[in-house]
Amino acid sequence: MRAAIFKGPGAVGVGERPDPVIQEPADAVVRVVLGCVCGSDLWYYRGESAHAAGSIGHEFIGVVEQAGADVRGIRRGDLVVAPFIYSDMSCPHCLNGSTISCPVGGNFGNGEIDGGQGEAVRVPLAGSTLVPVPGTGHSDETLRSLLALSDVMSTGHHAAAVAGVKKGDTVAVVGDGAVGLCAVLASSRLGAERVIALSRHADRQKIAREFGATDIVQTRGEEATQAVLELTGGIGADAALECVGTEQSIATAFAVARPGSVVGIVGVPHGQPPFAETFFRNTGWRGGPAPARIYIPELLGDVLDGAINPGRVFDYETDLDHIADAYRAMDERRAIKSLVRIGAI
Amino acid sequence: MRAAIFKGPGAVGVGERPDPVIQEPADAVVRVVLGCVCGSDLWYYRGESAHAAGSIGHEFIGVVEQAGADVRGIRRGDLVVAPFIYSDMSCPHCLNGSTISCPVGGNFGNGEIDGGQGEAVRVPLAGSTLVPVPGTGHSDETLRSLLALSDVMSTGHHAAAVAGVKKGDTVAVVGDGAVGLCAVLASSRLGAERVIALSRHADRQKIAREFGATDIVQTRGEEATQAVLELTGGIGADAALECVGTEQSIATAFAVARPGSVVGIVGVPHGQPPFAETFFRNTGWRGGPAPARIYIPELLGDVLDGAINPGRVFDYETDLDHIADAYRAMDERRAIKSLVRIGAI
Repeated sequence: MRAAIFKGPGAVGVGERPDPVIQEPADAVVRVVLGCVCGSDLWYYRGESAHAAGSIGHEFIGVVEQAGADVRGIRRGDLVVAPFIYSDMSCPHCLNGSTISCPVGGNFGNGEIDGGQGEAVRVPLAGSTLVPVPGTGHSDETLRSLLALSDVMSTGHHAAAVAGVKKGDTVAVVGDGAVGLCAVLASSRLGAERVIALSRHADRQKIAREFGATDIVQTRGEEATQAVLELTGGIGADAALECVGTEQSIATAFAVARPGSVVGIVGVPHGQPPFAETFFRNTGWRGGPAPARIYIPELLGDVLDGAINPGRVFDYETDLDHIADAYRAMDERRAIKSLVRIGAI
Repeated sequence: MRAAIFKGPGAVGVGERPDPVIQEPADAVVRVVLGCVCGSDLWYYRGESAHAAGSIGHEFIGVVEQAGADVRGIRRGDLVVAPFIYSDMSCPHCLNGSTISCPVGGNFGNGEIDGGQGEAVRVPLAGSTLVPVPGTGHSDETLRSLLALSDVMSTGHHAAAVAGVKKGDTVAVVGDGAVGLCAVLASSRLGAERVIALSRHADRQKIAREFGATDIVQTRGEEATQAVLELTGGIGADAALECVGTEQSIATAFAVARPGSVVGIVGVPHGQPPFAETFFRNTGWRGGPAPARIYIPELLGDVLDGAINPGRVFDYETDLDHIADAYRAMDERRAIKSLVRIGAI
C-alpha cells in the first residue's frame, strides 16, 4: 500500500509499505478515507522532537476491511472514527477516563504501528478503540467533521471539559490554531455565554466567530491580559483555555483566569506556569493529551445532527501524492490544518 | 491590652497595644479566648519572609465585645470563629468562593489590623467574616477544635476539596504537619476509603491514624513514591494532597497522583511542579490559601457533633505571657502546633 513516510526533518513523501494484515485477534484493518496533519506532526517535521522514520499520522476515519476474531462492536464495512491513540477501555486508567495512560495502548504512526496518513492501518485493540459511525451517505462536510473528532475537536473539548466550562460562563481561549478554534466551539457547545478568542489572524477570527466567539482580542502578552480583564470587569475569565504551549501563552492563560478557576491546558507545555503567584489566587491547571475515545461518542451525535461543524478548521486539502504539500502549508502557516483525501468511502 | 509583638526574626514577646475600638460601622471588637501559632508564622519568625513589626497571629476564637452599627448576624456575647482573613462575602470573588481575593478583605496581624495572638481584635467586615457558634457551655476539647477551623482544618479541607476527594477514594497525603494531619481528617470525613499518610514521626502517625489514615508511608522522595504506587497496585492515588511546599514534596505529590487526577496543593510552593511530565499523565493541580469563611459553617456542625476533632493537632499549649515558648516549640519541632490560652470564655 501507499503511505506517507517520514525520512527526517523536512522530508515527508509518499512511499510503499506492506499491506496491513490482522496480527492479533483484537486487530482490525481499516482502509483510510480521510487523514490529516496535526500541529504536533510539525514537531518532528521541523526537527524539534525525535520521531522514528516510517509511517506517520494519527488522525483518520475509514472503513473496516477486516476484523480479528476477538473484535466486538465493529464489523467489516463500518465507517469508523479512530481516536489518536488506541486503548483497551477496560484497565483502571481507561475506566477512569485516562485512555492516554492505558498500559497496553499506544500511538498510531510511531514507527511500529501504521500511521493514519496512508491507505490502510492495522488497528490494535480495534473493538475498544474505533468508534463506528451510524448511518450511511454522509456528506463530505460531515466526514470532515468526523475526522476532526479523531484529535483536534476532542482536544479542544478536553481543554473546556477539564477547566469545568459550564452554562453561562465567560471563557478565554488562548491560541487560534485548529485546537484553539475547537476549544472555542467546545466552550460554546457547553453553554458558555461569552467566549473571548485571542486571535491575531482575520481568517481564524472568522472561524472563531462562526464557532461561537463573542469577543476577539487581537493583542498578545500583557496587552492581551489587560484586554481580557477589561472585558470581564476586572474579574478574569471563569475558565481560561491554553491551546498553544509557549511560555507567553501559558502566562497569559494564568493571568486572565479568575481566582479559584482552573486553566485547561492542551498545548504541550514549553514553559513553566507562574506556580507560586497563581497559588495565592487559587488558580489551578488541568489538562494533557485528550482521552479522545471517551469524548468521541458524545461529540459524534452533535456532528451528525449538524449542531457542530469542527471540520471547518480544515482550510487546505490535498491527496496522498501531495502529502509533502500538506505539511509545507502548515509549516509555512498558509494552512490552519491540512486535510488529506486518501480513499473513497 | 496585651498582645504578642513581633520585633524581628526570632524576637516575639508580649507587649502593650492600644485597646481596639470600633472604627468603621462594619467593625466588631472581639475579646480573644484562644489563639495559636501557624506554620506560616514561622516564616517571618525564622526570617524567611518579611513581616511588619507589631501585632501578629491570624487564628483565633473569641467573644464579641462590641459590634458596629452595620454589623449583621453577630452580636455582643456571641462566641465566634474568625477565618484567617476577613472578607465582604458580597464581591464577585467571595460569591465565587474565593474569599482570599476579596478586594476589600485582608489579613489579621499584618501591622495594621490586630493579630489574633492578643487579648482583643478589631475585626473589619465583622458580619461577613466572623462565624457565630451556636450553643453554650462548650467543652475545652470543642473549643480547641473550633479554633482549628480558623485556618489549619479549613486548609486541610481545602486540599481535599479542590482535589475532588469523594466517597471510596484512595488519597495520599504528603506532609504530616498540622495541615497534613487535617488533610487526612478532611479526606476521611469526605468518605475516602483509604488514606495513605506520608509521615516519619511516631507522634504524628498516631494522630494520622486517629484522623483516619489507613496506611503510613515512612519514607521520602523516590522511596515514598514507590511505596504509594505499591499500595495502589501501580495505579497511584485518586487524589494526592500536597501539604508541605518543598520541591521534593511537590514532586512526590505529582508522582503518586494517578493519571487524570488533581493534586490538591496547600503548602506554599517553594519549588516548581514537573509541569511537562505531568501534562502527559493529565495530572493537574488546584489549591492555594483556603477560603476558610466558606468552609467553617460546614465544618462547625461536625465539630459540635463530635464527628471531627481537629483540635487534636494542638500538642503544646501555653499562655500569652509565654508566647515566645509557643513559637520556639514549633520552630524547634517539639510541637506540631502551639495553642495559646488568652482569655476566659
